[in-house]
Amino acid sequence: MMAMKDLIPVLDWGRQYKAVDLRADAIAGVVVLFITIPQVVAYAFLAGLPPETGLYAAILALLGYAAFGSSRTLAVGPTAIVAMMTLEATSSFADPGTRAYAVFAMKLGFVTGITLLVLRAINFGAVINFLSHAVVTGFISAAAILIIVNQFPAILGIGPSTDNSMFGILGFLLKSTNHINLVVIVISMGTIAFLICCRGYVESLLLKLGVSEQIAGALVKSAPMYAVVLGIIITSSLQLDMTSNVPVVGNIPGHLPVLAWVPVTLPEVRALLPSALLIAMVVFMESTSVGSAMASRKRQKIEPNQELVGLGLANIGASLAGGFPVAGSFARTLVNFSSGAHTQVASVITALLVIVTLVWFTPYFYYLPKGVLAAVIVISAWQLIDVQVIRRIFVFNFTDAVTFSCTFVAVLILGVESGILVGIIISFVLLIRSSSRPDIIVVGRVGDTEHFRNVERYKVTTIPEVLALRIDQSVYFVNTRFIENFIVANVADSPRVKHVLLICTATNFIDTSGLEMLERLCDNLNEVGVTLHLAEVKSAIMDKLEQTDFCDHMRGEIYFTTDIAMKDLSGV
Amino acid sequence: MMAMKDLIPVLDWGRQYKAVDLRADAIAGVVVLFITIPQVVAYAFLAGLPPETGLYAAILALLGYAAFGSSRTLAVGPTAIVAMMTLEATSSFADPGTRAYAVFAMKLGFVTGITLLVLRAINFGAVINFLSHAVVTGFISAAAILIIVNQFPAILGIGPSTDNSMFGILGFLLKSTNHINLVVIVISMGTIAFLICCRGYVESLLLKLGVSEQIAGALVKSAPMYAVVLGIIITSSLQLDMTSNVPVVGNIPGHLPVLAWVPVTLPEVRALLPSALLIAMVVFMESTSVGSAMASRKRQKIEPNQELVGLGLANIGASLAGGFPVAGSFARTLVNFSSGAHTQVASVITALLVIVTLVWFTPYFYYLPKGVLAAVIVISAWQLIDVQVIRRIFVFNFTDAVTFSCTFVAVLILGVESGILVGIIISFVLLIRSSSRPDIIVVGRVGDTEHFRNVERYKVTTIPEVLALRIDQSVYFVNTRFIENFIVANVADSPRVKHVLLICTATNFIDTSGLEMLERLCDNLNEVGVTLHLAEVKSAIMDKLEQTDFCDHMRGEIYFTTDIAMKDLSGV
Repeated sequence: MMAMKDLIPVLDWGRQYKAVDLRADAIAGVVVLFITIPQVVAYAFLAGLPPETGLYAAILALLGYAAFGSSRTLAVGPTAIVAMMTLEATSSFADPGTRAYAVFAMKLGFVTGITLLVLRAINFGAVINFLSHAVVTGFISAAAILIIVNQFPAILGIGPSTDNSMFGILGFLLKSTNHINLVVIVISMGTIAFLICCRGYVESLLLKLGVSEQIAGALVKSAPMYAVVLGIIITSSLQLDMTSNVPVVGNIPGHLPVLAWVPVTLPEVRALLPSALLIAMVVFMESTSVGSAMASRKRQKIEPNQELVGLGLANIGASLAGGFPVAGSFARTLVNFSSGAHTQVASVITALLVIVTLVWFTPYFYYLPKGVLAAVIVISAWQLIDVQVIRRIFVFNFTDAVTFSCTFVAVLILGVESGILVGIIISFVLLIRSSSRPDIIVVGRVGDTEHFRNVERYKVTTIPEVLALRIDQSVYFVNTRFIENFIVANVADSPRVKHVLLICTATNFIDTSGLEMLERLCDNLNEVGVTLHLAEVKSAIMDKLEQTDFCDHMRGEIYFTTDIAMKDLSGV
Repeated sequence: MMAMKDLIPVLDWGRQYKAVDLRADAIAGVVVLFITIPQVVAYAFLAGLPPETGLYAAILALLGYAAFGSSRTLAVGPTAIVAMMTLEATSSFADPGTRAYAVFAMKLGFVTGITLLVLRAINFGAVINFLSHAVVTGFISAAAILIIVNQFPAILGIGPSTDNSMFGILGFLLKSTNHINLVVIVISMGTIAFLICCRGYVESLLLKLGVSEQIAGALVKSAPMYAVVLGIIITSSLQLDMTSNVPVVGNIPGHLPVLAWVPVTLPEVRALLPSALLIAMVVFMESTSVGSAMASRKRQKIEPNQELVGLGLANIGASLAGGFPVAGSFARTLVNFSSGAHTQVASVITALLVIVTLVWFTPYFYYLPKGVLAAVIVISAWQLIDVQVIRRIFVFNFTDAVTFSCTFVAVLILGVESGILVGIIISFVLLIRSSSRPDIIVVGRVGDTEHFRNVERYKVTTIPEVLALRIDQSVYFVNTRFIENFIVANVADSPRVKHVLLICTATNFIDTSGLEMLERLCDNLNEVGVTLHLAEVKSAIMDKLEQTDFCDHMRGEIYFTTDIAMKDLSGV
């Protein structure tokens, strides 16, 4: 039976909560706040929504996940990728900036949350297994580029583009060159330079000055906040919004989110569902990958099923507060972890501080230049592109390289959603294609040992009467014809062969297509005076074979080991 | 370079053609005619078309395939399954019995032929690998039942049903019980009994009477022709069509087919293409399976690519003659083979004799009762259901049993086309599902040998410090999470374990998802004081691993054999 504490993890760790934990969580909660505020406001703009929606979404997402999520340090809220997907999905229902658009974003968050809970209910969290490493890497890298391109208008001080596709934005830029605002460029490029410097030099400088690693890290990670404060001070003191026409954030309503249930009709659910399902997969994938990375560093574990509940409720909470879909943030989780958070109390503290910010400090954000936020987004998105990982994909696995490239190009051209779907389909098509042409290796004996290896790679001895083949694949419908043709052709080329020995160490299952093929092969080889034998058939397959008449029907033997087989057959 | 004789096989075998071949081919050609006439006329009715279209389709299909096909004995023409698919596909464009319907059937044949040629051109005959044995068996068994149910109205003497789905026909029968014609039932049930007797008893009787096997076989196989002749004689002498209202075939135009090119518009091609593609796959599958079975009995070979050309031109020919899609017939090919056909000259002779029948003998078919043809179809269709094969699927492979059952039910309920698609999708989903939960086997040493086997199945010795696991699957994106969780959980349950050895004999490839997982696993195990080692990594994988930094990064060893690994690790 499931205990209550399994359903609501806070009941478990909450009981053992100590003062020392609170101190650690309080410090982490404050540090995370400094990166949360600029990011969530920026991601609200990225999603085509007013700035307060980012703060609203963050508050309820943090609280919802804190109560129900299984990771101790995951920081949930708006993220760049999910904001980009929200923009793409919601744009097809309403125009960004309108009230209808904001309502659809809320509905999308709600349906995403419900989808996550349904995935939990039907026990199908395994759906993320469909996202291969290559697809995820291709999708995230391309989405990062889309996100960066999406910031170009704000960086150049041009009003937002109505078309959010990559070519739409690039076309818009070409048409709008005469609207470029040099002051905005200075502000945004300055911010980018400042953020790069902080990452690259300031931390090592602080360490040299004797600052402790933890404090230096926290100081550097808060760099976006300094950029925001600097931007506000400079813009307000110089009145740049009036004198130089610098776009600023403007008024943010200084009150708490009003929790409101926006009814979603069935046709709307149907229309939103494809996007919501993809967003749910991405939310789950993003959150569990960063969550489990952090957990494993402390020998803790995250419970995938419980994550679906925590993330589902976080999304529903974000939606009720007037926000949009949320996920575990890579950057903020890392800051939370490295600032020493012990439990989700850190997230509760961050949430409370976001409320404080919302109620008392929003007037100060009036003068925050949008270019600073664009710079914050560019730097975050840039970090999503991991060149090391991409290089490895190209070196290690050709199929993955093709999948990566197709996903990458498809996301850039078709957008995030279609791009992921293209990636998933291609990864499966390539998988089936590769299993339809398995490696079939001619093997021989290594020296005097009982080991048999590839004749083309090792110095091995073979017997001309025996063709020993290792089939490096299960034998099933997609490859039975290939295997049959390969063996028949090989026998035709080797007139001295009297025995064919199939070594089944790498054959994990045989389906009925494979069984029919083996019988046919037995008969056909027999007509040309060749006997088919098997060796090292796995017990699970052997059990099944014994239930059919295959073994009686077969003229050759089924040997326990290749060694016994070769000794027996060479004696004939 | 491809020689002309490779493109047109007749140029190859035609050159060595001898008088003895002609004698054999002439006998086979005549015997095949006797089964061809009743079958192709019956299948034309099954396809919802006038009787002469079956004869037209047969003539050009036989000639087209004879010139370009690679099988020496394949008899091409209308078949039950393809006629059923034609009925289903064409019904959605026009009502059976109308002129428009016949035109669409011709167009369907044409697009099917072109599709086969395109599959040849893009070298994608491998598309039939998508049809697993279980899908094909399920589809053919269910289609046979659909075909038999389709004959019920004709057997009971009720006019044809307008709805050709299984439930449509059954509903129609229930509504039409008062139209049942007892004379028709006597004729059709009598024919069925006669055909069953011929198969079951007459052959053994003839053999006992000293008739040679070949002649007895030919006599028995021609049973449908005797039924036709008997039916004609009885009906015409008793004038049953007038006195008892027995539906008869009626007038068949007694002239040669007029070759006519019916232009197909692009929107029509698009509309017909999904059906044509499925029909093409079935045509190719049916034809190559019977063709290669016959060829292997004579150590001949069929060339799949050349088959696509032969079958494509046969379909285009059938369409130009006013027919409908055609395939290699299982029954007629078997008769052709067992009657001693040497080459496709037998098919040419059959085609010429069909022309003779068409020109001189069609008036005699006026009195042929439709109930006799329905009986011929029922008997042919019944033979398509192979209970032996179905039993074996259920015994041998659970996944295939599920696939078979789903395909079977889907074809019965949704029809042939949707049913095949459901089958293909299910077979792939189950394939992916099963590879996402691979067998991971804990192994130990068998006695003093160098062999390692499952601890649960064999008496083996293990070492408490070493957990030796054989992963019976490649390591790639659909199963990386499962494998990782399994190993971590196993290590957590075995506190004495210091080393985990992964034996990769059954791991045929590792993708980047797998590589990332192994690295993560290495690190995580290391934190709890456990070292990860690999053994028996296939050379192809090893080559790839060496191109990455995995081997430097890894703390454990990569051993050549499990034996060396276990000796080394037990010494620690």
